[in-house]
Amino acid sequence: MAIASIEKLTVQLARLPGVGRKTAQRFAYYLLAVPEEQAFELADSIRDARTNVHRCPVCGTFTDLDLCEICTDPKRTDAVICVVCDPKDVMVMEKTREFNGRYHVLNGALSPMSGIGPKDLRIGELMERCESGKVKEVILATNPDVEGEATAAYIAKLLKAKGITATRIAHGVPIGGNLEYTDEVTLAKALEGRRVL
Amino acid sequence: MAIASIEKLTVQLARLPGVGRKTAQRFAYYLLAVPEEQAFELADSIRDARTNVHRCPVCGTFTDLDLCEICTDPKRTDAVICVVCDPKDVMVMEKTREFNGRYHVLNGALSPMSGIGPKDLRIGELMERCESGKVKEVILATNPDVEGEATAAYIAKLLKAKGITATRIAHGVPIGGNLEYTDEVTLAKALEGRRVL
Repeated sequence: MAIASIEKLTVQLARLPGVGRKTAQRFAYYLLAVPEEQAFELADSIRDARTNVHRCPVCGTFTDLDLCEICTDPKRTDAVICVVCDPKDVMVMEKTREFNGRYHVLNGALSPMSGIGPKDLRIGELMERCESGKVKEVILATNPDVEGEATAAYIAKLLKAKGITATRIAHGVPIGGNLEYTDEVTLAKALEGRRVL
Repeated sequence: MAIASIEKLTVQLARLPGVGRKTAQRFAYYLLAVPEEQAFELADSIRDARTNVHRCPVCGTFTDLDLCEICTDPKRTDAVICVVCDPKDVMVMEKTREFNGRYHVLNGALSPMSGIGPKDLRIGELMERCESGKVKEVILATNPDVEGEATAAYIAKLLKAKGITATRIAHGVPIGGNLEYTDEVTLAKALEGRRVL
């Protein structure tokens, strides 16, 4: 009863992040049941996205232009670069509407366990951008996990040697959160990072 | 910062069942980050599945043949037809390896609230199949919800008029389940359907 085309589609869908075989099967049967145009539209969207979108050669985020809109925006300051691990982190940061500098995507974080060293990340490119003399501050917005912290510490050291201020985004209790449900490590960081009102 | 191709892909992915905008965005960025071949493979799988797979004209399940393997299998009996709502229910039933008859997919269940009446389902086709004289029993394996029960009751009435036995799959405590966590309605059905040991 196994139909090769359905099985192949299920296997491909199961490669999506967080999607197991059962969910993939559900997606596959859904795509077979919807009007043909809708399924084809999804297939075309995937092809189009991969054909039109590439990495910005300066900051490393996704763009359909030669240089991304953020890198070419004259209203943004060159004095501050925000360093993130992934292109999607750029989108998340932009949603805050609080940042008016440029970005730099590392494409991951240092992880000796997975064999990811400084040369596998876009750290060299970041250092080159810092050579211009325009950059005054680099905000390290890597994830607050072991790899992210290690990456931030590593880059901060390199920047210090160049006389550029390296800052780290604050760790603490999330807004709308609840002290009772905040883990001890976060709470300890929130205490450590307390500010005078 | 909104890139048209990514936005379009996100919208298309968000149409998958159980996928919200955030998960769709995660999928989209994942598909942009993986090797191009992998993304194209998914796009092609969707196209291939929609091109190769269609409904079996007899039972209504998905197949890449003229008639599905179950309808043409000479080792299966024509005396019993198992009626299900969806093509994927056929796959689920087949996994039990306990059923040796044929299937009939209704393509949904009766739902006056959504305007789905008997003519919108493959009930007429089921009745035609029952005309052959070979069918002795029809197992109604629609879902155990309001619509599924109503559909089963409706078909059972039609079959009775033809002198064909209509049976309903048992409702009760799932194997591996726990009485404590079983809802009252299921437990009441389990009591009602008790059998002599």
